[in-house]
Amino acid sequence: MKIEDIKKARKKAAGLLKKARIAITPREAENIEVSDFGLGDLENVGLLVVVYENNDRYCAKEIVLLPRQICPEHRHPPAGAAEPGKQETFRCRFGEVYLYVPGEATPNPRARIPKKYRPHFTVRKEIVLQPGDQYTLPPDTLHWFQAGDKGAVLSEFSSTSRDESDVWTDPRLERLPRID
Amino acid sequence: MKIEDIKKARKKAAGLLKKARIAITPREAENIEVSDFGLGDLENVGLLVVVYENNDRYCAKEIVLLPRQICPEHRHPPAGAAEPGKQETFRCRFGEVYLYVPGEATPNPRARIPKKYRPHFTVRKEIVLQPGDQYTLPPDTLHWFQAGDKGAVLSEFSSTSRDESDVWTDPRLERLPRID
Repeated sequence: MKIEDIKKARKKAAGLLKKARIAITPREAENIEVSDFGLGDLENVGLLVVVYENNDRYCAKEIVLLPRQICPEHRHPPAGAAEPGKQETFRCRFGEVYLYVPGEATPNPRARIPKKYRPHFTVRKEIVLQPGDQYTLPPDTLHWFQAGDKGAVLSEFSSTSRDESDVWTDPRLERLPRID
Repeated sequence: MKIEDIKKARKKAAGLLKKARIAITPREAENIEVSDFGLGDLENVGLLVVVYENNDRYCAKEIVLLPRQICPEHRHPPAGAAEPGKQETFRCRFGEVYLYVPGEATPNPRARIPKKYRPHFTVRKEIVLQPGDQYTLPPDTLHWFQAGDKGAVLSEFSSTSRDESDVWTDPRLERLPRID
């Protein structure tokens, strides 16, 4: 990604947070994490994140999704014998989120995946999250999600985040952004 | 507390959450935790809490404070050898919160404590939290807080909550509510 693209995406994320009436500091706005997972297709596949706190016991983030933006399928594997992998609770604050987890495939799902990406989306049980709804995902569970047409803001409460160890179904993906 | 007082307090809390544009489900609204700490003086000293998630790894709550309501001084002690006591991050979402922690006493603090309660408030270093501000409290650290004149909403992200083991400076206090 180019630094200008990252700045543009941060502005859009800040705009959605404002719409959701979620206050962030100017410093947080300047540091919004922008990931395109190396695909160079941020509008369709990407993640915009304000990390509030991440320590060795718990983590809290605000995840911002642009309209119809997808966070691709992944899981959080165990980190050594003592730590069973990140467990996380998603709570919708604004917009609508379509979350997919293992289980019987939901007929007529609401998410729309561009054709070229479809082989890397394997779990198909749909959970619809509207403001006030939440879902807790067990450790090491495959999942992916997409925002509805207005975009979305999702609070994530979890055990410690170790983004660099996430396992992506599409082996090309990289969680940590590369800046040109 | 009488059940009618609890219901009234829940309504006020739901009103403040609405003002703060924080969505909760009808079920959550019916289950807002109301604590008066056994003092029977909820308007001055009390806590209204929506528990989003509390598991053996992390916890997330929305704390609602009525105008000038005080959460009295306490700490979260270690829970056995492996667990150093609850660590928590407070993030202000709405209104203003005056948080007090160990350290040099702040001159002209903004909190106002009714005279009869003052002996049980011993830490006096002030941290002012406005929307978007946050503060992480180390385990086992004395603290107390009061909302400003508009009331406040405070997100709490933390390690596992074990409210029943909290240690209160005022030995009369009880965290878990008694319902008449």
